[in-house]
Amino acid sequence: MPNTIDPNDVRIFSGRSHPALAADIARHLGLSLDATHYSRFSNDNLFVQLGASVRGRIVYVVQSLIPPVSDHLLELLMMLNIARSAAAREVHAVIPYYSYARSDKKNAPRISITARLIADLLETAGATQVMTMTLHSPQVHGFFSVPADPLTARGMFVSHFHNRGYSPESTIVVAPDYGRASSAARFANQIGLSAISAEKTRLSDTEVYISDLIVRQVEGFSRAIIYDDEIATGGSIVELSRLLIESKIQEIIVVCTHGLLIGDAIHRMVAIPQIKEIVVTDTVPIPPEKRAPILTVLSVAPIFSEAIRRNYTRQSIGELFAFGEEQD
Amino acid sequence: MPNTIDPNDVRIFSGRSHPALAADIARHLGLSLDATHYSRFSNDNLFVQLGASVRGRIVYVVQSLIPPVSDHLLELLMMLNIARSAAAREVHAVIPYYSYARSDKKNAPRISITARLIADLLETAGATQVMTMTLHSPQVHGFFSVPADPLTARGMFVSHFHNRGYSPESTIVVAPDYGRASSAARFANQIGLSAISAEKTRLSDTEVYISDLIVRQVEGFSRAIIYDDEIATGGSIVELSRLLIESKIQEIIVVCTHGLLIGDAIHRMVAIPQIKEIVVTDTVPIPPEKRAPILTVLSVAPIFSEAIRRNYTRQSIGELFAFGEEQD
Amino acid sequence: MPNTIDPNDVRIFSGRSHPALAADIARHLGLSLDATHYSRFSNDNLFVQLGASVRGRIVYVVQSLIPPVSDHLLELLMMLNIARSAAAREVHAVIPYYSYARSDKKNAPRISITARLIADLLETAGATQVMTMTLHSPQVHGFFSVPADPLTARGMFVSHFHNRGYSPESTIVVAPDYGRASSAARFANQIGLSAISAEKTRLSDTEVYISDLIVRQVEGFSRAIIYDDEIATGGSIVELSRLLIESKIQEIIVVCTHGLLIGDAIHRMVAIPQIKEIVVTDTVPIPPEKRAPILTVLSVAPIFSEAIRRNYTRQSIGELFAFGEEQD
Amino acid sequence: MPNTIDPNDVRIFSGRSHPALAADIARHLGLSLDATHYSRFSNDNLFVQLGASVRGRIVYVVQSLIPPVSDHLLELLMMLNIARSAAAREVHAVIPYYSYARSDKKNAPRISITARLIADLLETAGATQVMTMTLHSPQVHGFFSVPADPLTARGMFVSHFHNRGYSPESTIVVAPDYGRASSAARFANQIGLSAISAEKTRLSDTEVYISDLIVRQVEGFSRAIIYDDEIATGGSIVELSRLLIESKIQEIIVVCTHGLLIGDAIHRMVAIPQIKEIVVTDTVPIPPEKRAPILTVLSVAPIFSEAIRRNYTRQSIGELFAFGEEQD
Amino acid sequence: MPNTIDPNDVRIFSGRSHPALAADIARHLGLSLDATHYSRFSNDNLFVQLGASVRGRIVYVVQSLIPPVSDHLLELLMMLNIARSAAAREVHAVIPYYSYARSDKKNAPRISITARLIADLLETAGATQVMTMTLHSPQVHGFFSVPADPLTARGMFVSHFHNRGYSPESTIVVAPDYGRASSAARFANQIGLSAISAEKTRLSDTEVYISDLIVRQVEGFSRAIIYDDEIATGGSIVELSRLLIESKIQEIIVVCTHGLLIGDAIHRMVAIPQIKEIVVTDTVPIPPEKRAPILTVLSVAPIFSEAIRRNYTRQSIGELFAFGEEQD
Amino acid sequence: MPNTIDPNDVRIFSGRSHPALAADIARHLGLSLDATHYSRFSNDNLFVQLGASVRGRIVYVVQSLIPPVSDHLLELLMMLNIARSAAAREVHAVIPYYSYARSDKKNAPRISITARLIADLLETAGATQVMTMTLHSPQVHGFFSVPADPLTARGMFVSHFHNRGYSPESTIVVAPDYGRASSAARFANQIGLSAISAEKTRLSDTEVYISDLIVRQVEGFSRAIIYDDEIATGGSIVELSRLLIESKIQEIIVVCTHGLLIGDAIHRMVAIPQIKEIVVTDTVPIPPEKRAPILTVLSVAPIFSEAIRRNYTRQSIGELFAFGEEQD
Repeated sequence: MPNTIDPNDVRIFSGRSHPALAADIARHLGLSLDATHYSRFSNDNLFVQLGASVRGRIVYVVQSLIPPVSDHLLELLMMLNIARSAAAREVHAVIPYYSYARSDKKNAPRISITARLIADLLETAGATQVMTMTLHSPQVHGFFSVPADPLTARGMFVSHFHNRGYSPESTIVVAPDYGRASSAARFANQIGLSAISAEKTRLSDTEVYISDLIVRQVEGFSRAIIYDDEIATGGSIVELSRLLIESKIQEIIVVCTHGLLIGDAIHRMVAIPQIKEIVVTDTVPIPPEKRAPILTVLSVAPIFSEAIRRNYTRQSIGELFAFGEEQD
Repeated sequence: MPNTIDPNDVRIFSGRSHPALAADIARHLGLSLDATHYSRFSNDNLFVQLGASVRGRIVYVVQSLIPPVSDHLLELLMMLNIARSAAAREVHAVIPYYSYARSDKKNAPRISITARLIADLLETAGATQVMTMTLHSPQVHGFFSVPADPLTARGMFVSHFHNRGYSPESTIVVAPDYGRASSAARFANQIGLSAISAEKTRLSDTEVYISDLIVRQVEGFSRAIIYDDEIATGGSIVELSRLLIESKIQEIIVVCTHGLLIGDAIHRMVAIPQIKEIVVTDTVPIPPEKRAPILTVLSVAPIFSEAIRRNYTRQSIGELFAFGEEQD
Repeated sequence: MPNTIDPNDVRIFSGRSHPALAADIARHLGLSLDATHYSRFSNDNLFVQLGASVRGRIVYVVQSLIPPVSDHLLELLMMLNIARSAAAREVHAVIPYYSYARSDKKNAPRISITARLIADLLETAGATQVMTMTLHSPQVHGFFSVPADPLTARGMFVSHFHNRGYSPESTIVVAPDYGRASSAARFANQIGLSAISAEKTRLSDTEVYISDLIVRQVEGFSRAIIYDDEIATGGSIVELSRLLIESKIQEIIVVCTHGLLIGDAIHRMVAIPQIKEIVVTDTVPIPPEKRAPILTVLSVAPIFSEAIRRNYTRQSIGELFAFGEEQD
Repeated sequence: MPNTIDPNDVRIFSGRSHPALAADIARHLGLSLDATHYSRFSNDNLFVQLGASVRGRIVYVVQSLIPPVSDHLLELLMMLNIARSAAAREVHAVIPYYSYARSDKKNAPRISITARLIADLLETAGATQVMTMTLHSPQVHGFFSVPADPLTARGMFVSHFHNRGYSPESTIVVAPDYGRASSAARFANQIGLSAISAEKTRLSDTEVYISDLIVRQVEGFSRAIIYDDEIATGGSIVELSRLLIESKIQEIIVVCTHGLLIGDAIHRMVAIPQIKEIVVTDTVPIPPEKRAPILTVLSVAPIFSEAIRRNYTRQSIGELFAFGEEQD
Repeated sequence: MPNTIDPNDVRIFSGRSHPALAADIARHLGLSLDATHYSRFSNDNLFVQLGASVRGRIVYVVQSLIPPVSDHLLELLMMLNIARSAAAREVHAVIPYYSYARSDKKNAPRISITARLIADLLETAGATQVMTMTLHSPQVHGFFSVPADPLTARGMFVSHFHNRGYSPESTIVVAPDYGRASSAARFANQIGLSAISAEKTRLSDTEVYISDLIVRQVEGFSRAIIYDDEIATGGSIVELSRLLIESKIQEIIVVCTHGLLIGDAIHRMVAIPQIKEIVVTDTVPIPPEKRAPILTVLSVAPIFSEAIRRNYTRQSIGELFAFGEEQD
Repeated sequence: MPNTIDPNDVRIFSGRSHPALAADIARHLGLSLDATHYSRFSNDNLFVQLGASVRGRIVYVVQSLIPPVSDHLLELLMMLNIARSAAAREVHAVIPYYSYARSDKKNAPRISITARLIADLLETAGATQVMTMTLHSPQVHGFFSVPADPLTARGMFVSHFHNRGYSPESTIVVAPDYGRASSAARFANQIGLSAISAEKTRLSDTEVYISDLIVRQVEGFSRAIIYDDEIATGGSIVELSRLLIESKIQEIIVVCTHGLLIGDAIHRMVAIPQIKEIVVTDTVPIPPEKRAPILTVLSVAPIFSEAIRRNYTRQSIGELFAFGEEQD
């Protein structure tokens, strides 16, 4: 039984989506990233070469499914496939942001449950295990045929709000829709607050309608912590904030794992004076121009590196994250 | 392209869980059930024999996963396997009540996502398609590798409440927990009402805690329609009714697809005078002694038979159920 | 190459069928059983949780397919599936009594070769190896796609009869039907006797007809050792004993691996005065009320534990059992 | 539902092992064999080309695994594979003599259950169904993952002996070993006789030892019908005949499905004057020089063609063979 | 056996890569394209919905892997997956330009044989058959596990040059590298000319070195027809033309199946006065601005539609293309 | 990470095709071959038994697909299957000569891409990795689903011609057909020469036509090194030599990996006085009677043993063969 990671027994490669996070994860493990060479042929075909022998070794490939998602996905599939074909002992897909987790059901005829399709593609390509974070719904875990570890950032969020002294009389945790409600309730419970859920109806990819039933529920509270899994254009947050402010909420804090912050999302939220803080993680790279003063970015590198370390040394990952459940 | 069902091209068999429903489905198709012979060896091994040749035919095996669930599941797997081995052209598992849909995520370490396991077992046994109803969460659809049609009873429920004249000022639809909230909202919308969700915490299999946040939300309403997917012991309904009654609700109607009504469930609900009606379907057989006067049992046989007919004649199943989504 | 079992590298779990045997196997290995938590939801769904981390470890799950067989089978499938999903390195199904081995052929149209179906289900659930004992026919070994080790209790039986001084003139080994004949002949040969076979026709699950051709064959012998693989209701033994007694056999000894002893089986046999001894193993738990004075129960725990030890330390299992073949 | 075979919808190809039988089967169906081109490269690689388009059609490939078995097997695998790759709708392997059925268990460590391996290879190559005859043990049926139809020649044998007036007092059916005993008993029962089994021990591939227990059993009979599945060198038949003759049997008839008749097998049997008749089928081609006067060859072409016709027109194959069970 | 296509039995969908070709293929079949709805979520996830029921039908999805290749590939995988999940009877991937066919071998360690990976992904997504054209090497055919039909445009090219009166003394067909040599030889043979091959070494994706061995070979010829499978940047054509012109070739004609014509490829070739004609097909869409006067675009729609028609009516595709082999 | 091979952790078995090479490979690893017992039943079925326990070990099975190819292939499949079933940890098929690599494409309708079929059969039988040498085309690598290492003998050939002082003005490397051209060019480059390719058309298995275009290309050279992958009957070499001699080549050296030398191949070549040397390897056994004085046989045992050693100790195989690419 190994107690420490043998650097010669492990390879960590990064796709092109988020090399900074991959390097951080490696650094926390006392390792360094192994080189990967990428290029693109003139016919737009991708080319990838892993820069270190993987024969008989445990390989981790780190890739977040950020835009351009299709390129990053195919690059990941190719990297997994190379590792398998080159006789790696285990091939782990480490996907901090699994964007397609949102496509987890058929709410219209003849559409794709793409979260399942991609789980199957990962296995076909050669993944023997998958590590990811905060899936859109906990059931997506069941889409994987190989062992999967959906990690959570909730523990980090709980620590972040520790000792703030928010009282349950003044502060309420708000889930933007029913799908987030259980997760928000678990977070609220860990910091001694209550949670409610708005009822959001999605009119289109960028427009939402939120029922005003929320008004009754936040009556009497002055501070709201909106707890979500992903901020893309920020539309839901902006609309929910409008309703909360109408309901006399004076201070809003936004907490979210995947800070995609597409387009002017960050500016739309910063423009609302009641929003005092936005807390996200770095599962998705956040460029300097989006790093507004009220934005706090917590790094998930310690979580992923610890999960890898425990996986390698055969310690329970569940035990480690005793402060939270296996997934949101 | 077939326009009608050729009786010689189709075989419908029933497991031992719910032959009355299976016969009803067959009857709606103008067919009759094919014989199946069951017995049990003295060592408790099951024995099944299909009573009609399936060679080159389309076979439907109807089985609800009611107690004893393990026996009914194994019997179903054996029947599917016999059909496949005997060279059936297609093998459809028709599972009106897929009990294990509730085991759809890991909320503790080292437990089983049994809903996925059983989807895989069905495929191993030989199922080429699956038809079921009102899965506990819509994501369970993605657990199946073969084409799956999760039908809904919502259309029947909507028809049942048509022309009742319930006004949105007096009547509110209540989901017992966040997981049911979206489904309840869709139902409410179709009968012109609003919906809210209670926040239920499960303390054990038979005990639940429901947050009193619900009190604020039902303020001003006099009638509540509780909308759930499954009633087992009735514990959630009883506890939620208590809270609603404390909140001045005077009339409660319970609507639920799978009326398991374990033990004295029906009596516990009947004992609450504010509960005026309980509407369930027959995905699970309901014996005479549980057929209380306030219990209405709607038959799903027309839905399943129409889905089978459309499947056979290659018509869209989604088009048929234009009044609702493909699943709850 | 490991020489001894590293307790931290191995996990042994027991299903609910036969925890005493599982604990015995673990004890013989110098290990202790790891905890497993079971319960049953009110809708009859099973719930299982493995009580120790299996990540990267070799897992053995011990379960005999005794009544209620379907529950024990599903419980086993769930435990295997949990181990696989939780990233165990190897997952061994240890099934001392594989009841469905009897369903090994199609002797009627459209029945199930359930022994094969279950072998496939075990693999789907996650078993990477299977260990079992005395399959009803040696061909069942070929139903498994994963490596399988069908062990034998014959060596124990041979030892048990060592030095009894039974002469080949007085004593004959009798197989109750042709399917047992080869196995009986091998046993007889090892204790210096001859063997014959009755011709049994099964009229129903509990009634058999045995041809009187046996009369000629036992002429001149005074003692018969009936050698069978499984005693369920004891019907075959009783009927065969009747014929043997008619043929002037004065003393009967019954030897059998799987002592299911359903209902009053033990009393029916004890009631025959010529039956002097019944020797079975503990692949199936035998409660105190069935432990008649003439019943000898030999424990298979040493055999299974030694097979596990040799499997772990990569020693040949065949070499160990040099006194017998790999299976009956 | 088709009532007759559409010649344009079906293709029948023959490998090189037994084109006469394949042509007979086609002729009984009112079809003709489709051309197949074979050759062998100078490096001993096989080359096969199917001579008619199989796109969207049902393809039957007829091949008996006679010597050279490996060449015939690989040729069969290639033909199945071509049909699959060329988009056939169904691909049936028709294997009148499945020689490896004899390798059905591990009676020594580290040997191959080749009957299972080949079943898997057939599926990998593209077989969607398998049709064969008189497998060495009925359990081999369970080795196939695709639907398999093991036909029987017993009905033909029964017809052959119809009206011979053999009395049960004078004539006994003898199985050469316990593995044939059940099958022999079924045959005996259908022609109104009793059956016994010799106890054969195989000393080597060509030498056997038969226990003299048989002597007691045939006491009083004057005619023996030896019922076996396969005659290779004839060694068992010769040795068993010797014992029977010693036991005062005056007339011996040999009945066997697969008449391999290797080397001088036929002459060794003909040399025994008490052997009055040898009845075999043509699952294996029998050249003129082996067609001794006492040899009767029954053709299995009607059985295979009728099975194909019923398969195509979706009639039960079991019903057809009401005179016998699905397999020996 | 169908003789014509039943419009209600077939669905043809187009991805976003080349709807004009897809519509043309449908038109040649007397059908029209079925609607497909595409969009992209703000997080860059793709969304696709098939606009017509596919239940029990044969579905063709047409998609060329042109830039953006990864998006088009994922879109194709999703469309195949939707069709499979919605219970289509057959799912055909029609990929006129399979760009990754070029990644067909490992010429460096730890790179991906992406042509095989993608063949596997197509099968995982649900493709039951694949139709494509002019694969980079004929061996790529063997990468597909499902039936694949690699069509050829050679027949069209041969017709195009029919009756031009090019004499074998004046005109030579030139393959730009050894990989194209066999294909060029076959083309040359069909129009009565000889063929030679240049030896091209690829220095980078856009730079090539061509050995001057070619000089000797074209001595005495005045016209060269360069025969290639794909023109991306045109670099090879330009460099080869330079050498040919140095070798006294006065007229150059370029023939190529896949006219990607990336960037200024068309202008670079047009700028060479000796290049008199460039003949490509429309497997890749060619926008108006690239349609230079010397460019001839032959449509492959008749080939693909005829192949689909023959596939549907179960006629041999090979027979149709008697003028050429199944692939280049 | 292992640095040396633990003899108790590895088993090397040889099929009957080439035990001398297998023993040599073992010897280079400091190991000895493990015993294998073969026989053949009278019905021509093969029987194999591995002579040492493989449980938990890494197993290498060495078999060249030389005549009788089908027997050697089936024997190999059985050996792999035994190893897998007996719980080996890894099962490597080491196939120095993979004859069916030549059947790598469909150049006629309804033939088999047998190189792919056999790759699939190897995986079905249990191979977890494959090692081979000089595949007929590099794309065949992509036919394997399991990790495959196609080694090259080119390094040995380069060493063999080192310091011979052949000048690029006098000596040219000649590929017999376009398929060998790239490989020949790489070899030529490594010994400082140029390469050209003949255009060979195969008229039948034993007759070829070689275009006289070669005449122009070899003008001025006096020595030709023919570089091929396999010599079967020698027909191509003889015909090419004839043309080269007509073109004033005075000295011919033949270099080829797989020296099958069927029939009188060696004598036909020796009979040509200009052929001064024939260099082959021992991937195929070469009997004494074929060991002509001008024949040099280089042993591949060091290459295979080093590849096995590096595989076992997890060193890059690509790094080792830095002098050449991974395959020809």
